[in-house]
Amino acid sequence: MAMGHTVDYRISDRDENVHVGVWDNSLDPVRTVEPGSVVRFECRDATDNHFDAESTVEEMATKPSGGHPLTGPIRVDGAEPGDVLAVELLEFQHKGFGVSYFYSRDTDKGLLPESFEEPGLHTWELDGDVGRFVNGIEIPLEPFPGIVGVAPAEPGEHSTIPPRRVGGNMDIKHLTAGSTLYLPVEVEGALFSIGDCHAAQGDGEVCVTAIEAPMSVTARLDVRSDMAIEEPQFETTGPFTATGADEPAYATTGIADDLMDATKRAIRHMIDHLSETHGLTRAEAYILCSVAVDLKINQVVDAPNWTVSAYLPESIFPDEEGESADQ
Amino acid sequence: MAMGHTVDYRISDRDENVHVGVWDNSLDPVRTVEPGSVVRFECRDATDNHFDAESTVEEMATKPSGGHPLTGPIRVDGAEPGDVLAVELLEFQHKGFGVSYFYSRDTDKGLLPESFEEPGLHTWELDGDVGRFVNGIEIPLEPFPGIVGVAPAEPGEHSTIPPRRVGGNMDIKHLTAGSTLYLPVEVEGALFSIGDCHAAQGDGEVCVTAIEAPMSVTARLDVRSDMAIEEPQFETTGPFTATGADEPAYATTGIADDLMDATKRAIRHMIDHLSETHGLTRAEAYILCSVAVDLKINQVVDAPNWTVSAYLPESIFPDEEGESADQ
Repeated sequence: MAMGHTVDYRISDRDENVHVGVWDNSLDPVRTVEPGSVVRFECRDATDNHFDAESTVEEMATKPSGGHPLTGPIRVDGAEPGDVLAVELLEFQHKGFGVSYFYSRDTDKGLLPESFEEPGLHTWELDGDVGRFVNGIEIPLEPFPGIVGVAPAEPGEHSTIPPRRVGGNMDIKHLTAGSTLYLPVEVEGALFSIGDCHAAQGDGEVCVTAIEAPMSVTARLDVRSDMAIEEPQFETTGPFTATGADEPAYATTGIADDLMDATKRAIRHMIDHLSETHGLTRAEAYILCSVAVDLKINQVVDAPNWTVSAYLPESIFPDEEGESADQ
Repeated sequence: MAMGHTVDYRISDRDENVHVGVWDNSLDPVRTVEPGSVVRFECRDATDNHFDAESTVEEMATKPSGGHPLTGPIRVDGAEPGDVLAVELLEFQHKGFGVSYFYSRDTDKGLLPESFEEPGLHTWELDGDVGRFVNGIEIPLEPFPGIVGVAPAEPGEHSTIPPRRVGGNMDIKHLTAGSTLYLPVEVEGALFSIGDCHAAQGDGEVCVTAIEAPMSVTARLDVRSDMAIEEPQFETTGPFTATGADEPAYATTGIADDLMDATKRAIRHMIDHLSETHGLTRAEAYILCSVAVDLKINQVVDAPNWTVSAYLPESIFPDEEGESADQ
């Protein structure tokens, strides 16, 4: 979809076009564009393209620790604080390779660090719109930018790890091609940056990585002075399931008086289900949860206990594996 | 779907078949059935059928406060602690009427009690598979039981308001006809009860009610000794969107270092969006969020800030209203 747009500006991922690990409104813009411009960004992956198809988990030890490399910032002419930057996401192109990994317990990263003594890693061959996992499992690719945002008004350097009201590392899997993201502008020119692309991700991104992949992203940047928003908003058509239509899912539920606890319970149960029913190692199951399992908040009003469920699409398994009802 | 099942047992909603407000494993079962039996339950709504089509918000003052009326408990022969009760949901029939409401600020009920000084109420005509709201908005009906569970092992009375590991008030909107719910059995005979049916609900049920409706529910109750689960799990085919396929949605995002705060922010922004863009009062917007807007956890790993978004299906609005892109 959305092929063949006339591109007004091309921004490569050479060092002078990339800022690493921080948002900072004092960074010099790499380009100034008019509102309505279509810009094609080359984006390194979250690891600064550290891994390749032959990488093993041992190479995590030498992974750069400087944070996310982002392409930008782009100054959009005429964007003023209080305006909205409309980012129409037009096209994504991966390079045939991706990586997913999680850290060991001692780092305290990811939803369930206490459950994994050792780190884990899976390298992905990305074949058109499919990523291949173990045991014949195929993940439909729906690329999006893990990080997309504008510079915060507050001076100084701000880590790229947490998202904030100007966007950033939101990891919203529905920011696919065809979607439009609205970002609140806080500084003159907006100062837009993008990167950390994901070829696929589940709602939650529980192991701390999706299918991390270098990509090129084409987007139209426009200024809306007729909107006012406090935090990002967006229009999307999903996909909301692996196949784009209603399909069988297996779900595990976490019930607790804290949403994070309920979330952890749901994912722990899903890891149990995947290892017991689908023959995955617990490390494989954790990664599969992060790239293909969706977290939904079922209810937040039946005090004192909330319900969160984790949904696994059955369509990612090869046909011969059969129904999970037979477990 | 799932019409015409041979029903083995019919349980009416007369007083001797209904327990109100509590789970208690010392309650006498209203019937004992063999595993595999198909049971048709008549279920009063969450308000004990207090409202009708002419009801106004003033009638909230006289609403019974005894808690949810549940039909049951049903003793399933042979179910033992450690087993799993498989509840195959076969068919739902509403009675053409439903109600949604929220409480005033002083009750501290619902996700945003502080935002609503006065209570609000909407009565629904349920016409086949559609519920009609204001301004031509139509909600597709996808009935499910708000409460479905078995008796806890712990002796004594337990409120029906919070869900717990044996199920109960989970408010999982995907427990539609065709779904199978697995519940961990904690007492001999399982002691299954059901009620609090909803004709439609968004993920979150943020105003504290869905489309609350009296219904009859047909379900097959079976015992699985080959499964072991700690909390409920289920198989479903959704629906995962209002139309059952990918469709346009407008989403608002909440970013915060606490999942509940992020959830509240996302819903506050959606209420703003609905009132500014679709001409709803804030009370109408709150109810619409509760019955039709879905909460998803986008990410829980980009410390210290998490991302939660609220998704509004555009298909519920009449065609002439046009695209939200034009806002």
